[in-house]
Amino acid sequence: MLVNVERARRLMDESGLDGLVATTASNVFYLSGLWSHSLIMFPQEAQIFGLASRENLLQPVVVVTTGEVDTAMECFPGVRIINYGPFHRYVAEGVELTPPEARLKELAVDREPKSEPLEALMAGLEESGLTDKTIGLDEKGIAPAYPPELEKRFPRLVIKPAASLFTRIRMVKTEEEIKRLRGAVQVTEKAILEAVGMATEGVTEGEMAKGFEKALIDQGAEPLFTCLRIGRLTAFGQCRAGDTPLRKGDRIWFDVGCRYQGYSSDIARTFAFGDIGERARRFYQAILEGEERGLEAIKAGVKAEEVFRVTVDAVRNAGIPNFRRGMVGHGMGIWLYDPPMLAPGDETVLEEGMVLDIEPPYYEIGTGALAVEDTLVVTKGRPELLTTISRNLEDVG
Amino acid sequence: MLVNVERARRLMDESGLDGLVATTASNVFYLSGLWSHSLIMFPQEAQIFGLASRENLLQPVVVVTTGEVDTAMECFPGVRIINYGPFHRYVAEGVELTPPEARLKELAVDREPKSEPLEALMAGLEESGLTDKTIGLDEKGIAPAYPPELEKRFPRLVIKPAASLFTRIRMVKTEEEIKRLRGAVQVTEKAILEAVGMATEGVTEGEMAKGFEKALIDQGAEPLFTCLRIGRLTAFGQCRAGDTPLRKGDRIWFDVGCRYQGYSSDIARTFAFGDIGERARRFYQAILEGEERGLEAIKAGVKAEEVFRVTVDAVRNAGIPNFRRGMVGHGMGIWLYDPPMLAPGDETVLEEGMVLDIEPPYYEIGTGALAVEDTLVVTKGRPELLTTISRNLEDVG
Repeated sequence: MLVNVERARRLMDESGLDGLVATTASNVFYLSGLWSHSLIMFPQEAQIFGLASRENLLQPVVVVTTGEVDTAMECFPGVRIINYGPFHRYVAEGVELTPPEARLKELAVDREPKSEPLEALMAGLEESGLTDKTIGLDEKGIAPAYPPELEKRFPRLVIKPAASLFTRIRMVKTEEEIKRLRGAVQVTEKAILEAVGMATEGVTEGEMAKGFEKALIDQGAEPLFTCLRIGRLTAFGQCRAGDTPLRKGDRIWFDVGCRYQGYSSDIARTFAFGDIGERARRFYQAILEGEERGLEAIKAGVKAEEVFRVTVDAVRNAGIPNFRRGMVGHGMGIWLYDPPMLAPGDETVLEEGMVLDIEPPYYEIGTGALAVEDTLVVTKGRPELLTTISRNLEDVG
Repeated sequence: MLVNVERARRLMDESGLDGLVATTASNVFYLSGLWSHSLIMFPQEAQIFGLASRENLLQPVVVVTTGEVDTAMECFPGVRIINYGPFHRYVAEGVELTPPEARLKELAVDREPKSEPLEALMAGLEESGLTDKTIGLDEKGIAPAYPPELEKRFPRLVIKPAASLFTRIRMVKTEEEIKRLRGAVQVTEKAILEAVGMATEGVTEGEMAKGFEKALIDQGAEPLFTCLRIGRLTAFGQCRAGDTPLRKGDRIWFDVGCRYQGYSSDIARTFAFGDIGERARRFYQAILEGEERGLEAIKAGVKAEEVFRVTVDAVRNAGIPNFRRGMVGHGMGIWLYDPPMLAPGDETVLEEGMVLDIEPPYYEIGTGALAVEDTLVVTKGRPELLTTISRNLEDVG
């Protein structure tokens, strides 16, 4: 179970909501534990829902296609499944079914599926006791034609947009979420070390990137983004790693992430393959100093934008006087870039249990990028780092 | 270049459109070659656009964040880049810049970025000469507030929804697209053979699934979905492969896909690890017969739903009399499940150059699934198969 029940109830009460309807991959997963392949692959088309009343936040209803019932059976215990649309399964004769087989038969063969998503969603509202209540509906993933149909069918139903409410609930993590985020960080760190362990004269960027991704897969994680570049090419950080061979004096730059047990990682590290020069080392120290001062500033009660100011000032004072940046960090969770943003104008007050990334990277055309990025849990004092590998510019040459 | 220019112009003319605005990952890629990480990771939030006039379909404009300018530089030749928002890059002093570095400097440092996506989109319309024209706007990826703002700013602009028009344009593939789809099929086939090559008593499902995904990564492809299960667990086809060890008499079932050079694959194969029994072999022959009759039915001029009817009837006549299915195939392209669907009610008339998957799988609770799925190009005669590996139930035990 992932939901922060106490926080969810408090924020729902403030908005006068009796229930929640999730419509996007991350919100459906958050409520129910359903990792919907349909929502991941067809975010603009798939109609998959998670519904929960204020009183039953841990026993939600999921609305899925009949094809996805097998996946839905892997939701958290107590999740009720409503399915729609045709997907034909047969039952072997004269075979004793295992308990999961018997359940699949019961859910996806013996029961008549609802004909289409809207009908299933209506059944989900009935099942959740929400047809005459006020619901917060994540407006980002629902077919625009559906809310008016719901209001027509249930005249006492009140629908309020709730995408930003889901976001606010999810900002403060439960223990289970922190455990998963820590897991995502750990597998990513191990993959970084495996990839950088390949560093030898002549190995290509692309070979190291493949090594990184394969190390993730070996650990049961899914590569999410692999920005791994070398030398001056690090200025083109988001372009795909290519055939350029590693040479002495190159930097090796990682800004990488994976998905693990539904949660994301996002870590940056810079390594030196031999001597990358005094200026690059000095500039790296400056961004590291900025990160360190930022880490010191992060604590419950401080505003997100204040961390931004402290971090940027520290990088400037430590040796990059013209340092500028749009943001120096962001929330982490099921999705990359959960709020808050450590950026000007974000007045979110940090709370214990938020999980954030902090990152003051420096991109220079002609020499390349330098970066360090870490994941942490906000506490009352110094934040707890989830990242564990060295933050120094290690020489692996 | 991917766009089917002749088809695009004809369909635009039929709808009275002078230009197109793409707003989703697949349509932006189709027009420009930009693989937008923002759109992939934040499909409900990212505002990235591709714009092209009827006369300049191969010289589109892309609107990207300043951070993504490096990726945008890898678009097709002739694509113009407009960027917005802050992302700070510096320029090394006393270093001679390479041509790509000089271009990055020119685009992302020397020029002032637009302040936000709407302003950049307006500049894109001006750059494309479309401000007083009729445009087809893919309504699925644009912030709902933007179209009214565009109409206010450009009183002579006419906006029509065009998500389904993009879909229709993309249904018939160009040579370059078929080349990429063939590539996606080839790397997937090689990965299937590598994974099934691991089949030995006691190897787990999960180990084979990891072997499959690592084989994709080694070939420069990205795993998209890996439904690889064994024995009776194949009835739970979409659940993640686990720790169950392979035993003699198990079937090994793949329904897998990757993304390669922007295009998707989706292939199913069933292997026998030793003797899976006479009934399973007989049922496999029935679905293979259905696929074969379906392949014979597929040709330019035939309706999609007619292929469905032929395929289902053939499976029934070949030995599974109660065979039912919602659909037996679908278009393939940048995204999985491009239209048309080989399904009842889809009256799309097949055309030369469409790329389709055909699949009549059989799911049985208590014994497991049997599947075969192939990718083909529609011609005037027998379709050209892009898949090359054996469609028979090969014994690998």
